[in-house]
Amino acid sequence: MKLLALGTVALDTVKTPSGKRCDILGGSATHFALAARFFADVNLVSVIGEDFPRRHLDFLRAKGLDISSVRKQGGESFRWSGEYTGDLNEAITLNTHLGVLSAFSPEINRAQRRIKNIFLANVDPDIQMKLLNRIQSPRLVALDTMNYWINNKRESLFRILKKADIFLANDAEARAISGERHLINAAKELKKIGPKIVLVKKGEHGVIAYFENSIFSLPAYPVEKLVDPTGAGDTFAGGFIGYLTKVRKINKNTIKKAVVYGTIIASFNVEGFGTERASCLTLKEINDRVRKFKKLIHFK
Amino acid sequence: MKLLALGTVALDTVKTPSGKRCDILGGSATHFALAARFFADVNLVSVIGEDFPRRHLDFLRAKGLDISSVRKQGGESFRWSGEYTGDLNEAITLNTHLGVLSAFSPEINRAQRRIKNIFLANVDPDIQMKLLNRIQSPRLVALDTMNYWINNKRESLFRILKKADIFLANDAEARAISGERHLINAAKELKKIGPKIVLVKKGEHGVIAYFENSIFSLPAYPVEKLVDPTGAGDTFAGGFIGYLTKVRKINKNTIKKAVVYGTIIASFNVEGFGTERASCLTLKEINDRVRKFKKLIHFK
Repeated sequence: MKLLALGTVALDTVKTPSGKRCDILGGSATHFALAARFFADVNLVSVIGEDFPRRHLDFLRAKGLDISSVRKQGGESFRWSGEYTGDLNEAITLNTHLGVLSAFSPEINRAQRRIKNIFLANVDPDIQMKLLNRIQSPRLVALDTMNYWINNKRESLFRILKKADIFLANDAEARAISGERHLINAAKELKKIGPKIVLVKKGEHGVIAYFENSIFSLPAYPVEKLVDPTGAGDTFAGGFIGYLTKVRKINKNTIKKAVVYGTIIASFNVEGFGTERASCLTLKEINDRVRKFKKLIHFK
Repeated sequence: MKLLALGTVALDTVKTPSGKRCDILGGSATHFALAARFFADVNLVSVIGEDFPRRHLDFLRAKGLDISSVRKQGGESFRWSGEYTGDLNEAITLNTHLGVLSAFSPEINRAQRRIKNIFLANVDPDIQMKLLNRIQSPRLVALDTMNYWINNKRESLFRILKKADIFLANDAEARAISGERHLINAAKELKKIGPKIVLVKKGEHGVIAYFENSIFSLPAYPVEKLVDPTGAGDTFAGGFIGYLTKVRKINKNTIKKAVVYGTIIASFNVEGFGTERASCLTLKEINDRVRKFKKLIHFK
């Protein structure tokens, strides 16, 4: 089944205790799509500059992604550079160069307007709304955001939040939007705004999910060789929304299994820089680790 | 089976967003014992002052605890007062009044010297060693500590750590002792010092356990009405060590189940001030919630 993903396709420069990489393929839509591709036909909506390396586009195509709505525009590509220190839980952004992203207006073709499942990765909430308005009859809308929009475009963010079925936030974002410190209460407050499913991503501490008045949480998969956490959240979202797109049914069991797939694919993603690990990941490896995870957390 | 627990029996004054309580029964040995009593015959080793309310001692006895080695000494009881704000993850200590604890020398009777399973709650590591030296042939020694001893009695702490089979630390302590930010690496480093089992307690984020070169983690039980986190760590330890004392066998399965019991009893403890909730807790309630927890985190 088809899945439309709006977000960034970027060039990242990343430094972690494991090393440094320059101008590698990154961006929220990229990480999301490389995870979601295991379960759905992913169509990307994004923008790149004239300087964007052709090999990255070839790579995305080779992974089976539809990049016909990744538009090339005059100007430079979106670039992010960051560094992780200490426990690698949070990136220090060294530089953000918006480039063509500053004038981004998402365009999709007629076939894409009929796609039912939509992921709106973290971009300006007005751009998220613009894309959503182009969809004929969305069935499942999942939303991500970041602190910048919470602080600077709160009204626009709430407008799109009311239209979302699923909201994915990290712990800091969940607290900032809800005004609640306790994450379970934060998830409940977020659900009151509109989304039927709220996920609070806690990085190395796993995920809290809130759905139909019940809360459940899962730990992260214990990764021993953490190389680069960049894109872990979008990878999680890709596994999560991808799986729900595949199974179609939304209930406690499928949501839980979707969280498991998001968790496991993200655990691979952080084992390499950028898309290094995800690019050669197989469904067999994913399912093997899902079984291992099950063994780790299940008890009699 | 018998279980000997060294620690504090204290009078706590606690303020949380849910209210305030003055001079309520608290202390590491108290919280530990109220959890461990479901699985073992707990013998407490502690000290109280002349001002210690008789009703608290009657209460501990009524709960089936052996308090013959909780000695009354001339002077004032150990008092702690603290406040929790925000997400209730960390207490702000407002005052610590050591009283009789400042001259505490643990004394046990002949029968207690033959007890095999020992829990050394957070007190001066030299006092922990003093008690341990009085035990004829310890079989299972579990140790807790706090940042104060890491910073001020590092050598004494490492001496007792080498003699411990199980070490329980919270995330900050695990990082401070090991010098590792990443908690999985921190657990590995701690294990190198001596203990066969290392548990890193992460409060609302659950627990990481490291044993026989394998790591597993469990989330916390999602508590919706968090009233007072005081004693959650010692309550966890009580459920954990208590269960291992009962089943006698130590392997991956029993350790996991012990973590589950620790997690669940701690989840009750934080639903009331001090010992309020734990004091009327039943094994049936615990087992019901263990089943609920299982349903929450298991997937097909």
